[in-house]
Amino acid sequence: MGSESDEREVILGVDGGTTSTVCVCMPLLPFSEFPDPLPVLGRSVAGCSNFNSVGEDVARETLEKVMAEALLDAGVKRSAVKAVCLGLSGVNHPTDQEKILGWLRSAFPSHVKLYIQNDAVAALASGTMGKLHGCVLIAGTGSISYGFTEDGREARAAGAGPVLGDWGSGYGIAAQALIAVMRAHDGRGPQTMLSSCILQSLGLSSPDELIGWTYADPSWARIAALVPVVVSCAEDGDQIADEILHNAVQELAISVKAVVQRLRLAGEDGKGSFPVVMVGGVLGANNKWNIGNEVTNSILKTYPGACVIRPKVEPAVGAALLALNFLMKETVANGHS
Amino acid sequence: MGSESDEREVILGVDGGTTSTVCVCMPLLPFSEFPDPLPVLGRSVAGCSNFNSVGEDVARETLEKVMAEALLDAGVKRSAVKAVCLGLSGVNHPTDQEKILGWLRSAFPSHVKLYIQNDAVAALASGTMGKLHGCVLIAGTGSISYGFTEDGREARAAGAGPVLGDWGSGYGIAAQALIAVMRAHDGRGPQTMLSSCILQSLGLSSPDELIGWTYADPSWARIAALVPVVVSCAEDGDQIADEILHNAVQELAISVKAVVQRLRLAGEDGKGSFPVVMVGGVLGANNKWNIGNEVTNSILKTYPGACVIRPKVEPAVGAALLALNFLMKETVANGHS
Repeated sequence: MGSESDEREVILGVDGGTTSTVCVCMPLLPFSEFPDPLPVLGRSVAGCSNFNSVGEDVARETLEKVMAEALLDAGVKRSAVKAVCLGLSGVNHPTDQEKILGWLRSAFPSHVKLYIQNDAVAALASGTMGKLHGCVLIAGTGSISYGFTEDGREARAAGAGPVLGDWGSGYGIAAQALIAVMRAHDGRGPQTMLSSCILQSLGLSSPDELIGWTYADPSWARIAALVPVVVSCAEDGDQIADEILHNAVQELAISVKAVVQRLRLAGEDGKGSFPVVMVGGVLGANNKWNIGNEVTNSILKTYPGACVIRPKVEPAVGAALLALNFLMKETVANGHS
Repeated sequence: MGSESDEREVILGVDGGTTSTVCVCMPLLPFSEFPDPLPVLGRSVAGCSNFNSVGEDVARETLEKVMAEALLDAGVKRSAVKAVCLGLSGVNHPTDQEKILGWLRSAFPSHVKLYIQNDAVAALASGTMGKLHGCVLIAGTGSISYGFTEDGREARAAGAGPVLGDWGSGYGIAAQALIAVMRAHDGRGPQTMLSSCILQSLGLSSPDELIGWTYADPSWARIAALVPVVVSCAEDGDQIADEILHNAVQELAISVKAVVQRLRLAGEDGKGSFPVVMVGGVLGANNKWNIGNEVTNSILKTYPGACVIRPKVEPAVGAALLALNFLMKETVANGHS
């Protein structure tokens, strides 16, 4: 992309989800006015960078690689980077942020601004064009609900991973389906269409083989990939699959409502307007049994002022916009505006 | 133990649970009459040998080590071994049995009889003194129900590991408690005594830290070790802890009832007598809130002829008795009785 781009300053936005990591390189834009469409100079994709699931060494390597490749794709030098914002699943605590800052500090000169957030924050920003206000619900392989008030208070619900009960996630839905198959098989639960459909989709001949299949590869994404089978069984009238999806809808709606209530995002009367950004494969699919629409209906019943947004840009771009927002705020705070 | 023991033939019984592996070395006794107490010549303990959780290399190494050490402890040579019976968690399918037979075949001369069973089968035998009749319920770190009819039909329920929903297991109980803590913390669920009690027991200061704690070490036993905290909260009147234990009781009783029904162990009228062997830390504890007694009551309500047995010998001895039983049957079948 030539010598011209060597001159201009850029920002990097990284979205590190449970399944893959995306990095975009964007020019340094004024936060007040964005061109439409947003200019993306370079983009790269890598594997999972959640250190909880792949370990710290792999996570660190993946982050360094995905940023280097986005810069290469954009044709700009590392020295052109003004700020980096990473939205990473697995960042749940200030100590997580410090750990990742430690990894990145050596990769960039000290004047480069580094912002580390949970990936939900980048997803929220992808719907609000970089503003931190409202609530985001992500339901992909994992699930989380995360919210911010305009004066900077924040809250989250779920997002603690499969062991700690993210039942509305893609993993949660698929795991419940696998459990239903085991229960039907050994006589603890009712028969379900899920048995033949899941076995067929995995190329297995008996539910007993599911045990080995499950442990052969513990990646959550592999199990979450069964969600379309569950949706299709529910659409074909299977009651167990239908119950699993209804439970997931309830879990996802509860996680949004918990955040909205704790932050009073809908005001004291519960009728105020606020954005709810919805992201992720579980919510996005255009099926007859539409999980995203059901979650929306449940939220609107409790909070009629909720304004549901399906982002037009990807979360990595949200992370980049967030970097611009943070830079702008620091500039204002330093009196340089 | 001297030169005398070098002469006599011995059998090895191995119990490979989710947390540890025990091997006993016993003399070759006639199956018809056992001395009381049973003579155990040697015993050894090693770590987990479930290849689903530790991988095949570690599992194989652990099994070879635990058997070598039991022989060493008994002071007998490997050439004195007449038969080996292994009851192993993780053995769920004929291909699993073949895999482990492959590991062991090279460790013993071809005339040595090798029997590979699920660890539940050895636990049943520990209550029935080597007979394969009735139903066993194991609830330790994991849970499984396994049954045999007198004419050799068998059935199992649960025992598919945490991903596939063993909710009555120690892991299942503790995981539900951790989930309840997360839900209370982020506003999705009611407050519970479990929050402060679990955090205190783990030396953590906030539920957010549970996420890192959970993923720092994925071993099921580490999570299952929280069961006493849940029991103690339930005894102190915490409703959430009480519900978790009641659900576990129901899950465990359902897994027994599913096996009993499929095998018609209680006869056509459901009133016949049959043994139910109960094993494992979750069922054995002598608490005010006694999970084992509650499960027993639930089973007796449905099957009044169930005869609950708490084994006096350990499952590894059950495995050894099983080897004697199998040897006796082969001798009878070969006309050498």
